[in-house]
Formats: sequence, structure tokens, C-alpha cells
Amino acid sequence: LRQQLNATPQLHPKAGALRHTPIAGVILTNGEVDAVAGLLSMREGSPFTVYAHEKVLAILKANSIFNVLSETNVRRQPIEISEPFEPRLPDGARSGLEVLPFAVPGKSAWYLEGKAHPGGETGDGDTLGLKITDKATGKCFYFIAACAEVTDALKAEIDGAALVFFDGTVWQDDEMIKCGLGHKTGKSMGHVAMSGDGGAIARLADLALDRKMFLHINNSNPALLPASPERKAAEQAGWQIPADGTEIVL
Amino acid sequence: LRQQLNATPQLHPKAGALRHTPIAGVILTNGEVDAVAGLLSMREGSPFTVYAHEKVLAILKANSIFNVLSETNVRRQPIEISEPFEPRLPDGARSGLEVLPFAVPGKSAWYLEGKAHPGGETGDGDTLGLKITDKATGKCFYFIAACAEVTDALKAEIDGAALVFFDGTVWQDDEMIKCGLGHKTGKSMGHVAMSGDGGAIARLADLALDRKMFLHINNSNPALLPASPERKAAEQAGWQIPADGTEIVL
Repeated sequence: LRQQLNATPQLHPKAGALRHTPIAGVILTNGEVDAVAGLLSMREGSPFTVYAHEKVLAILKANSIFNVLSETNVRRQPIEISEPFEPRLPDGARSGLEVLPFAVPGKSAWYLEGKAHPGGETGDGDTLGLKITDKATGKCFYFIAACAEVTDALKAEIDGAALVFFDGTVWQDDEMIKCGLGHKTGKSMGHVAMSGDGGAIARLADLALDRKMFLHINNSNPALLPASPERKAAEQAGWQIPADGTEIVL
Repeated sequence: LRQQLNATPQLHPKAGALRHTPIAGVILTNGEVDAVAGLLSMREGSPFTVYAHEKVLAILKANSIFNVLSETNVRRQPIEISEPFEPRLPDGARSGLEVLPFAVPGKSAWYLEGKAHPGGETGDGDTLGLKITDKATGKCFYFIAACAEVTDALKAEIDGAALVFFDGTVWQDDEMIKCGLGHKTGKSMGHVAMSGDGGAIARLADLALDRKMFLHINNSNPALLPASPERKAAEQAGWQIPADGTEIVL
């Protein structure tokens, strides 16, 4: 997207415009607190659009605090699984991007455990992956920030991609428990581990992916440490763990 | 509180304890997003207590996202107007502080406009001031982060105080509109202006207050700028606008 940002002056803050931000839209791929709480820090007066599946929009609607983003300025647009859409700029101009949401194994947000899901208990939509394509060049990448299991369907979806960003929350499913950080496993949070037989590294090893990068890495994950054996193992398997500020050009 | 913090080793992060924080409690004095959203960034595994009036606790309860703070670790304790309480440390030890909540003119949270208030429409509790006393020395100060009007009752409450922190959101009621920053006035957000006949500076001028400091200052308020005439006027009236990191010893 960086290339897009540089080429599109509307996506920089407007000179002299107080409280303008260049953020034209936010795509929510799940309803977890780390995916949605940032909305509460957004500028309410600078128009943008929130794109999310109805299951996630239902959570926002059921939580009145998200009304800090008045729907006059901040439109909430439902997105559907397998239905590509083109995000628009606040002035209605085309972004030049096509975004295709697809279902990914996951679970509803942790804070809804034991509560009724505002968007209903059944059906996909709580966890999405995105295929994002530059309509001018046809170049595309995949963004999958949460994924509970690498299924064959998911493998088929992303095989051959030039770039995949993939959920790298934990190295081992029970690392938080082992470290004494809490009682949650990766799976209970909807995240497949990097390592192990069913882990992302092993399960995606046989795909033709030009670049594969982990994101959404928890601070319990030893692969975050540049000098760790786990980082080395991930890199030897062809994965990158990008540093903050990394720019990627497709 | 700084003095307290330095004297109380339990209030520092525990050496070697992963994800421990020294925050023993949070007192919510209103339900606005800037008062409550920070809860979503708190450590859920390090026990603490949220103290708030039932009207504000009802808002937290109605917004399921706040369940990220499991009530197993994060107790929610109702506080009552005019009923002093002593916050406890997570291990049950006394803090040595007495906190007295009192009603302050205000309004319910902005994001509830046009919605039913989860805590009911009537009665005080949406906006509190706090009198905080060191039980060992009897020294105390007042904390009033939101205040829609300086009433005679409020003046009587704080008269003679050694230190008052007071709502300094806006300099003039309509400054956000004049600057083109939005359509909200200070009053519509529940904040009395610093300046003007009914403003905090004028209304509190005849009280005997050793130190008076503005806090909760909006970035539209010209008194935030150290070289502004408004800053000068506030300081000439005996007010301080503390810099980040200021330490105060009573």
C-alpha cells in the first residue's frame, strides 16, 4: 500500500487542514480488542469508512462506546465473504484497490466468551483474510492477521502468491502458560502456532510463495527476538519477521 | 500520590514478574471515552480494581468489550457520592489514602447522546470530583477533570484547599467551532471554559486555594501554548498549567 500512498496526494494530511488524517478507511478482519479498540483513538471529524463483516459490525453496534465515531462522518460498510469491493476515498474517488475478503478458521472475540454474540452464533465472518490487489497492475498480496488452523482450503487460496502476511501470534500453542503469563493457549485465542506439525511454518512449507512474512506477533513469542534460535528457524524456513517501519514494494 | 508511590515498594513493578504493573486501581470520574478507553490497554493479568459510580459501571457492563478485563482479576467496585473509601492494594493492603467522591455538574457520555443511558437517566454519578487525603498526614488535594459549571456548592467544597486540579478543557466555550475543528461547544461536552464571567478562573478567583492547576486541556485551548496571551492570563490569575512529568509534593 505504501506505493499507493506515495502516489496519491489525497492520502497525506491536507496542508493547513486542522485534525485531518490521511486514513481513508479501516478494514476490520475480526472483532478482537486489538483489532477494534484503535477505532476509539481515531479522529471523529475526518471522514473515513469502517469496512467489516456484519458479525463484527454487530459487535460495534452493541457496544455504544463506538458511537464516538459518529455515523455522519464515519460510515460503516458491511463486507461479504467472497465479494470483492473497492474502498473509496472520503471524497468518493476510487482507491484503485480491490479487496477480497475470505473466511479463515477463527473464533468470536475473547470478550464475548460466555455471552451471546451480537451478530449471532453461527456462520463465518468473525475472522477474515484479505486478498488486496492493485487494479492497475494486478499485483496482489494476502493479509491474514488471525488464523486458528491452516486448512487445505486456505492453502489453495493463497498458493502462488507474491506476498503473504500471516498470523504469527505464538511460536508454541502453550507458550503463555509455560512462561507464567496467563492461562490462554494460542488456539483458545484463535491463533495457530508458528512451529510444530500443524503450525504455520510446516503447513505452508509446500506452497509456492515468493515472500512470506509473520505479523501480529505476541511478546511471548521468542521469534520476536532477532538472535533467538526460533527466529533463525523461521528465517531458515523462508519466513521474514519485518522490523517496524519496513516498506515493501511488490 | 508520587510521595506515596516512592514510599511503597508494592507500587513498583515487581522485579522478575512478567507483565506485572504497579497500577493497583483506577478511579473513573466519568464515562467519557477519554476516561474509560484506557482500560482496554490495561494488563488483564495483573490484578487491580476499577472504582466507579454505578452509573459509569453500568456503561462498562453494557459494553461487552470491557470484558477484556476479566472480573476474576479486575474487580469493579461501586463508589458512592459523599461516601469516602480507602483504595486497597491488590494483596489487600491499605493504600493509606482516603478518597471522597462528590457530585460535579456534568452530563452523560457523549457517545450515549440519543441512546438510553445504561445506568438510568436520572440522578448524579456521571461526573464526580474527588478529594484525596493522605490518612497519615491529613494532607489532601482535589481532582476535578470534568465540570460543566462552577456552582456555589462546588466552591464551598474546595475552598481552603492546598491543591486543586481543575478541568481546563477549553479557554472559550465556542473555540472549537471558531477554529473549524467541529461543532461541539465546551458546555455540550460538559466542560466549563477557563475564561469569561462564568469561567473557572473568574468563578474560583475569590477562594483561598494554595495551588490551582488546570488539567485535561484540549488541543484547541490556546493556554496550552507556553507563549500565548491566554497562558499568561491564566498564570497571572494564579493558575498553573503543569508540564508533562511534573511532580508535586504537598
